Amino acid sequence: MYFPSWLSQLYRGLSRPIRRTTQPIWGSLYRSLLQSSQRRIPEFSSFVVRTNTCGELRSSHLGQEVTLCGWIQYRRQNTFLVLRDFDGLVQVIIPQDESAASVKKILCEAPVESVVQVSGTVISRPAGQENPKMPTGEIEIKVKTAELLNACKKLPFEIKNFVKKTEALRLQYRYLDLRSFQMQYNLRLRSQMVMKMREYLCNLHGFVDIETPTLFKRTPGGAKEFLVPSREPGKFYSLPQSPQQFKQLLMVGGLDRYFQVARCYRDEGSRPDRQPEFTQIDIEMSFVDQTGIQSLIEGLLQYSWPNDKDPVVVPFPTMTFAEVLATYGTDKPDTRFGMKIIDISDVFRNTEIGFLQDALSKPHGTVKAICIPEGAEDVKMLSHLLQALDYGAPPHGGIALGLDRLICLVTGSPSIRDVIAFPKSFRGHDLMSNTPDSVPPEELKPYHIRVSKPTDSKAERAH
Amino acid sequence: MYFPSWLSQLYRGLSRPIRRTTQPIWGSLYRSLLQSSQRRIPEFSSFVVRTNTCGELRSSHLGQEVTLCGWIQYRRQNTFLVLRDFDGLVQVIIPQDESAASVKKILCEAPVESVVQVSGTVISRPAGQENPKMPTGEIEIKVKTAELLNACKKLPFEIKNFVKKTEALRLQYRYLDLRSFQMQYNLRLRSQMVMKMREYLCNLHGFVDIETPTLFKRTPGGAKEFLVPSREPGKFYSLPQSPQQFKQLLMVGGLDRYFQVARCYRDEGSRPDRQPEFTQIDIEMSFVDQTGIQSLIEGLLQYSWPNDKDPVVVPFPTMTFAEVLATYGTDKPDTRFGMKIIDISDVFRNTEIGFLQDALSKPHGTVKAICIPEGAEDVKMLSHLLQALDYGAPPHGGIALGLDRLICLVTGSPSIRDVIAFPKSFRGHDLMSNTPDSVPPEELKPYHIRVSKPTDSKAERAH
Repeated sequence: MYFPSWLSQLYRGLSRPIRRTTQPIWGSLYRSLLQSSQRRIPEFSSFVVRTNTCGELRSSHLGQEVTLCGWIQYRRQNTFLVLRDFDGLVQVIIPQDESAASVKKILCEAPVESVVQVSGTVISRPAGQENPKMPTGEIEIKVKTAELLNACKKLPFEIKNFVKKTEALRLQYRYLDLRSFQMQYNLRLRSQMVMKMREYLCNLHGFVDIETPTLFKRTPGGAKEFLVPSREPGKFYSLPQSPQQFKQLLMVGGLDRYFQVARCYRDEGSRPDRQPEFTQIDIEMSFVDQTGIQSLIEGLLQYSWPNDKDPVVVPFPTMTFAEVLATYGTDKPDTRFGMKIIDISDVFRNTEIGFLQDALSKPHGTVKAICIPEGAEDVKMLSHLLQALDYGAPPHGGIALGLDRLICLVTGSPSIRDVIAFPKSFRGHDLMSNTPDSVPPEELKPYHIRVSKPTDSKAERAH
Repeated sequence: MYFPSWLSQLYRGLSRPIRRTTQPIWGSLYRSLLQSSQRRIPEFSSFVVRTNTCGELRSSHLGQEVTLCGWIQYRRQNTFLVLRDFDGLVQVIIPQDESAASVKKILCEAPVESVVQVSGTVISRPAGQENPKMPTGEIEIKVKTAELLNACKKLPFEIKNFVKKTEALRLQYRYLDLRSFQMQYNLRLRSQMVMKMREYLCNLHGFVDIETPTLFKRTPGGAKEFLVPSREPGKFYSLPQSPQQFKQLLMVGGLDRYFQVARCYRDEGSRPDRQPEFTQIDIEMSFVDQTGIQSLIEGLLQYSWPNDKDPVVVPFPTMTFAEVLATYGTDKPDTRFGMKIIDISDVFRNTEIGFLQDALSKPHGTVKAICIPEGAEDVKMLSHLLQALDYGAPPHGGIALGLDRLICLVTGSPSIRDVIAFPKSFRGHDLMSNTPDSVPPEELKPYHIRVSKPTDSKAERAH
């Protein structure tokens, strides 16, 4: 069996230096990401009271009456303030005349990071006062009316310095950290890249987006699978590490081309740069060979790659099994991304399972399957899958891309926590809500479980 | 506070009779769904060995050399067979001449539902033998080569009669049931409708697709939430019933427009037509009012509605609180679809929470929040959310559509299990894999839990 080393090469290829965004220039980078993709810019102000976003205003809007909603980024004396929304910053002139006293009062007294709505006219900045570093730097807003939508309590720190704080503090106040340019950019890039992957798979190549269960049976050797107690005494669901079984069953079911942006779970305890739940772009095709999967994935990444990054070069470099062994001294693919292509030839070579045997007997037979350890119990746990493979299973192959890691590489983020809206700490905690947490004993009763703390043996006997 | 009765009206509106597909005409309906949407038909044969799908061949392909992969649907004497793939059926002529003996042997001996690959020429059927009921009924395939890709063991029943079997049997052999026209159509329609919703939200209206955690803290009164034991003694995650807290925190984080095709969990024990895990189209917007949400959802359903169904008529009918009370005798919205818009005025009217108070004090203030029961512990469990609302939370509103139920209505399916690839039985079991299942005691140890069966009290004391 061949070793699909091009998969790990793919990621190594991606890990070449990608231009890192260090300057948080609100709006400009995000806009350029959208504009360069030759698509219509979405209507960001449909359905809402604002007429425009703060970040989109340019000289072309001069003279227009606009209504904006945003956060007060900062205020200079009592003469102007900078209003921020997800799309950028805009300068707002605080009116000084008597007749606008109430507007002035609102804009001067609202604490920084308060939410306000202003209406007024887009005007030119006076000559010499343009700010070329600011995408909206040629204009400002002459305000007519203002409304304080929600005053902000004093913050524990300034938003703009947030990225310099400890990660624990950023995770505790995640909703404030999300206002940072970097998090806005990362999450929006992620959303857009996944959307393009969907277009490529679904609209261009006829893949079917199919949701598979996450409350399932534990897999053999599934020591890293979270358990979910059911209301039946002693019976548990398991949160699967991947949709591996389901994607194969879908092929047996004739779905032909499946993909899913799949939530996966792995309980690895304390490990840096891992998350107990993570996301895979999970793909499986019938009647495909290695070359087909390779072309698919090259096309997928080219199509979805952000236009403001260096383009993806295809074909990706490939290596044979012998080459990778000689070069890296290991016969195991890089599994950090959840790609579980495992050589099961030895396990199946002498079995009765016709389909797999046929595939194994062919040169370069592409059999991808979960690793099945020995032992009768383990085989029993997979009997449904083994049975399914007897009932007209088509040859099939697939791949799973670790999305968090991929977006991390594309954005040049130091940690996968920077591309996940609400990540867990490296110990698996949600620091914002204090999760995991204790549960009252009466809520455990319906699930027929009891906590047995390590030091509890005495208490337990007394119970 | 107003009662958004138009939400339940929306579903009542949808539940008017939708044309039910009773005739399983392979291919034609699915093709019409694709073609009528004025999109390019996807390239179904990219990356694979086949040149065409079985279902796409027409008179326009006459004379072409094609390679097809599919399942043997049936065989008449030893003269021809019908080959099936996801796209439809095509008739294949079994060669009778001596020189093609090996091809004849393969095609005559392979059991029904075996997977074969054939290559040959598209030819006209003899005059008078066309089948007008079959989309490919004007042509047939003159085979040159054939390969048996995987022989099928004798099936417990015929695929074409599968829908007439008991549901328990269909769930046990789900991978066979998935080959039925109805399941193929339902899952493909679901995939396409969700894709269009994504285009509408993401590409047209600037929503950001954001994944939120499913390993989270239990919510107050969350008696219907599955628990997930962690490796910390006595500490549990909870599988949330909706991303309600996260969507609000994203608004506080300035993400402006969020959506997610969100996996949700609810442990309701044995209930017909419910699933322990289900899917919501979850949406939240900043700076929006009732009218905005209403227009958004009308546009969303119009845009994503399958073109082969009766069109959606907007605006949806609306009713006031007084009207719905007079008509239906209840002040509660229909919560079957997971829409948890709850009147929390009484809970919050006397609290210190400025933002909510402001909203409540306005006429028709649109406050949507999770229901917070009384009790100090419960408030503590939500302290992160209550704190976040103090730090510059924008006014926001949203909606969550129950996707399984929606697709059920659109396809006219009798049960939500017909629009889910791998559903659980009404008792929450996966009948294919026998889930939930027992777990060896040593696998419970890392999670510091023990099973306490109802009849186990004696055994426990002896332990």
